[in-house]
Amino acid sequence: MFCMYSNFLNIIDILGTFAFAVSGVFSAMEKKLDLFGVLIISFVTAIGGGTIRDVLVGNLPVNWLQNDVTIFVIFISALATILFGSYFKHLNTPLVLFDALGLGLFTIIGFEIGLEKKFSGGICVALGTISACFGGVLRDVLLNKVPLIFQKEIYALACILGGATYYLLHRTQLNNDVSKVICIILIFAIRIVAIRFKLSLPRVSLK
Amino acid sequence: MFCMYSNFLNIIDILGTFAFAVSGVFSAMEKKLDLFGVLIISFVTAIGGGTIRDVLVGNLPVNWLQNDVTIFVIFISALATILFGSYFKHLNTPLVLFDALGLGLFTIIGFEIGLEKKFSGGICVALGTISACFGGVLRDVLLNKVPLIFQKEIYALACILGGATYYLLHRTQLNNDVSKVICIILIFAIRIVAIRFKLSLPRVSLK
Amino acid sequence: MFCMYSNFLNIIDILGTFAFAVSGVFSAMEKKLDLFGVLIISFVTAIGGGTIRDVLVGNLPVNWLQNDVTIFVIFISALATILFGSYFKHLNTPLVLFDALGLGLFTIIGFEIGLEKKFSGGICVALGTISACFGGVLRDVLLNKVPLIFQKEIYALACILGGATYYLLHRTQLNNDVSKVICIILIFAIRIVAIRFKLSLPRVSLK
Repeated sequence: MFCMYSNFLNIIDILGTFAFAVSGVFSAMEKKLDLFGVLIISFVTAIGGGTIRDVLVGNLPVNWLQNDVTIFVIFISALATILFGSYFKHLNTPLVLFDALGLGLFTIIGFEIGLEKKFSGGICVALGTISACFGGVLRDVLLNKVPLIFQKEIYALACILGGATYYLLHRTQLNNDVSKVICIILIFAIRIVAIRFKLSLPRVSLK
Repeated sequence: MFCMYSNFLNIIDILGTFAFAVSGVFSAMEKKLDLFGVLIISFVTAIGGGTIRDVLVGNLPVNWLQNDVTIFVIFISALATILFGSYFKHLNTPLVLFDALGLGLFTIIGFEIGLEKKFSGGICVALGTISACFGGVLRDVLLNKVPLIFQKEIYALACILGGATYYLLHRTQLNNDVSKVICIILIFAIRIVAIRFKLSLPRVSLK
Repeated sequence: MFCMYSNFLNIIDILGTFAFAVSGVFSAMEKKLDLFGVLIISFVTAIGGGTIRDVLVGNLPVNWLQNDVTIFVIFISALATILFGSYFKHLNTPLVLFDALGLGLFTIIGFEIGLEKKFSGGICVALGTISACFGGVLRDVLLNKVPLIFQKEIYALACILGGATYYLLHRTQLNNDVSKVICIILIFAIRIVAIRFKLSLPRVSLK
């Protein structure tokens, strides 16, 4: 039983890592970086959020230093995208789907680490959102852009709503893995609906 | 007695957090971020310096993860500024005063943490300066600007001078809280005088 | 014997720190920062890579907080470069040589810390590369540029090749210090050859 649960978390981790590594490569390619630069941006996008979370809560050495599977998945994902990404250059859809999936996956992983440390519910939601969104923030900072998620679309908000829902579900009798799948799908759905209908948060500026 | 001392530190902390959260919102508004982006920049400005300090010295989990008061103060400050900030859009003065106050407050808090860890005087001054100034550095990096404090005005220098003064005072018989107030006022005064008379450090470049 | 070894590491450390502090000042001067800004960029370039490495592996407080020699070396190097740097403004050569030397030195120091923590060979190479290259990445982020090492020339690749060679040599009977010198020279040589013949990695972009 523990084994199944553990497998479930591992598969979540690998899929999310794959999705973020691919989206990192696409972003880096737009800036015409060299091979090393693209690989680093791919790594940072995939592990950046989890790294910031691990550093903030003091889970050191950070997870990926001890996890060769993560490194391997990112490396293979990045190479495959570099070699074959040009075939679907006009297809924005896979990038968006991968990204939305990763978003849901990492939010729940981050939330769980907050629970383990017995932080308050709000902090757990924040840790989930940091895990999911701040790889992208680091990616944009390294690519010398104002982070995309500060400017448009419902992105972090999906993580916040999904995290809050998980907080409520995890206090019920519902099986934990079922709760996770529900919240991952919820985050995925909010994100896809937001893109489809071009929903965004209001901009704030001095009138 | 310990309680009074502790209250004194807490009030310092809340006032400083408020001042930095407000100045973060103003900076973010200039870049026309969305609501989530403005809130994140507000948080980063308020807790960024202390977070970098906590990570460097190994005080993990970082302070704000365990401190709901800080989170609450930033959230309320940021919301109030977003809602009512437009009323004083031509008033640069409150922004400057809040910022100068926060600068003094956080320098002393950072210095104290260095003392607790028994670092040398120079490192304590550096930790005070990092606590006070690097929230603003992170804010500017996220807003895709060269950090303001690397380019103009007497800003970090005020922290360095205030920190050095505190180092000297804390070795005298003077009551510790009195020393703190003196140094906070000193940093505040240096900063305000520098702005009033447009004092700045010399720029350095290859002639 | 231990003492000699220890001295050897210390000298490596001081030389590398000097080299990076100087190159940080040169980069900062191009952006016309003020005196404080130039000093901070010099510090960040010199200690940034090691700081990121220490945080990731959990060696906290980070090394330089407890090491007044490092602080002193950077401060003196930066001041000397600010004062006398304009005399050799047309000389790009010393900057390049210092930088290539520092690159080799820090790669080996980072690799060794990975070994101490019993990380896998690939992670040790990554830690060496992070130690050597990410001070420059932080420098470029603070100066609001896409990091140079993501865009051109053989830079990080020299660290990766040097680190991998060290991994192989350290498993042989060869004296450890001899291995170190060989790898530092190798990294230095790859870097200089790459500059001399304008070698670079292929850029990756969507065709």
